[in-house]
Amino acid sequence: MSGDAVIIVAGGEGKRMGHPVPKQFLILDRRPVLWHALTAFHRYDPDLTIILVLHKDWIPKWKEISASLHPDIRYHITAGGRTRFHSVKNGLARIEKADLVAVHDASRPLITTSLIDHAFKTARRKGNAVPAIPATDSLRIITPDGNKPLDRSTVRYIQTPQIFRMDILKKAFRQTYRPEFTDEATVVETLGESIHLTEGERRNIKITTEMDLKIAKTLLYSDDQ
Amino acid sequence: MSGDAVIIVAGGEGKRMGHPVPKQFLILDRRPVLWHALTAFHRYDPDLTIILVLHKDWIPKWKEISASLHPDIRYHITAGGRTRFHSVKNGLARIEKADLVAVHDASRPLITTSLIDHAFKTARRKGNAVPAIPATDSLRIITPDGNKPLDRSTVRYIQTPQIFRMDILKKAFRQTYRPEFTDEATVVETLGESIHLTEGERRNIKITTEMDLKIAKTLLYSDDQ
Repeated sequence: MSGDAVIIVAGGEGKRMGHPVPKQFLILDRRPVLWHALTAFHRYDPDLTIILVLHKDWIPKWKEISASLHPDIRYHITAGGRTRFHSVKNGLARIEKADLVAVHDASRPLITTSLIDHAFKTARRKGNAVPAIPATDSLRIITPDGNKPLDRSTVRYIQTPQIFRMDILKKAFRQTYRPEFTDEATVVETLGESIHLTEGERRNIKITTEMDLKIAKTLLYSDDQ
Repeated sequence: MSGDAVIIVAGGEGKRMGHPVPKQFLILDRRPVLWHALTAFHRYDPDLTIILVLHKDWIPKWKEISASLHPDIRYHITAGGRTRFHSVKNGLARIEKADLVAVHDASRPLITTSLIDHAFKTARRKGNAVPAIPATDSLRIITPDGNKPLDRSTVRYIQTPQIFRMDILKKAFRQTYRPEFTDEATVVETLGESIHLTEGERRNIKITTEMDLKIAKTLLYSDDQ
């Protein structure tokens, strides 16, 4: 039996896409986006403790949608909070015992078992693991008096799952919320912990817009990493 | 008659994709990637001076491929150089008279007429225009002793066409090459010029991998910006 856990965060209402349903509920290959993320973690380890954090208004709808989808995947549902920080904190409160805890965006449905496996292995060795890919764009940074180039070779695009030792993550989330807590890495490093980057995959995209959903449909059955 | 010009840069051999032909020659909707870029600028202004910079080994092949494609688009072909800087410099040498000169990646086939139009208008008003979109990823920056978060609200992903006054661009390209000259903006600002960012489009992607080509196919007939 696994001693690890994952918190899949879908706390937002998804109003950004102008959709009547949150983006995690949109359909990708006949199943909701969120379902793909859930399945990937279950496939990686059927004994993994899975906590799904949903906006409270959407819990009944998800239960209705999901009833026919996964009789064989067991997971806990908990209500999201005001920000991602609060949603993850609510999820963490449901985990009593675990070695490592992963936090994953519900809107990243193309996460692969190999990425999950690799990230857990890194976290077990180093205390944490955050998937990252090299920057592929030319970059500039806005300055008080204009903008200037930013050397892309030093920049990494950050993904999830972000994985941490449970004790460290719980301690980190006892801190008072700050606006700069945009992901779990930023919360944990405030304790003085170093963040260990692990290899992400370009296909592990986050679905934020209609365009992303179309791209995800294209990539779903593609072998590209 | 237009007093402007565009240099479409396809100087690379495209070996990165492991393809026998450069990525600009790959087929997107029955026509080479490069053809889409060429057509977009011709559609924007049929009188625009168009210079196509190709690796010298691929000029005969392009002439063969393109013979049946565009009897109505007139443009000049010139050979590329060792780096992008040298390729653009070769292209510039072919332009004797122009108000504004745009430089565009041949591997950005989804460029729209409206982006081109908007960028030329900005450049005419402000001296130059470089299309940029907000960073959509969480970002970290590699430091000598690890890595740290980078506030994505200050970061822009840079695209092409990058448009400049011809006199300024010619002067900038008389400088000795430096490795930090990764795009035209970095060359021009070395003269002390300020770079003016203009609104890019998320769909204006650069095709570097097989995955990008698949994504481009998906976006080609999509209305998403």
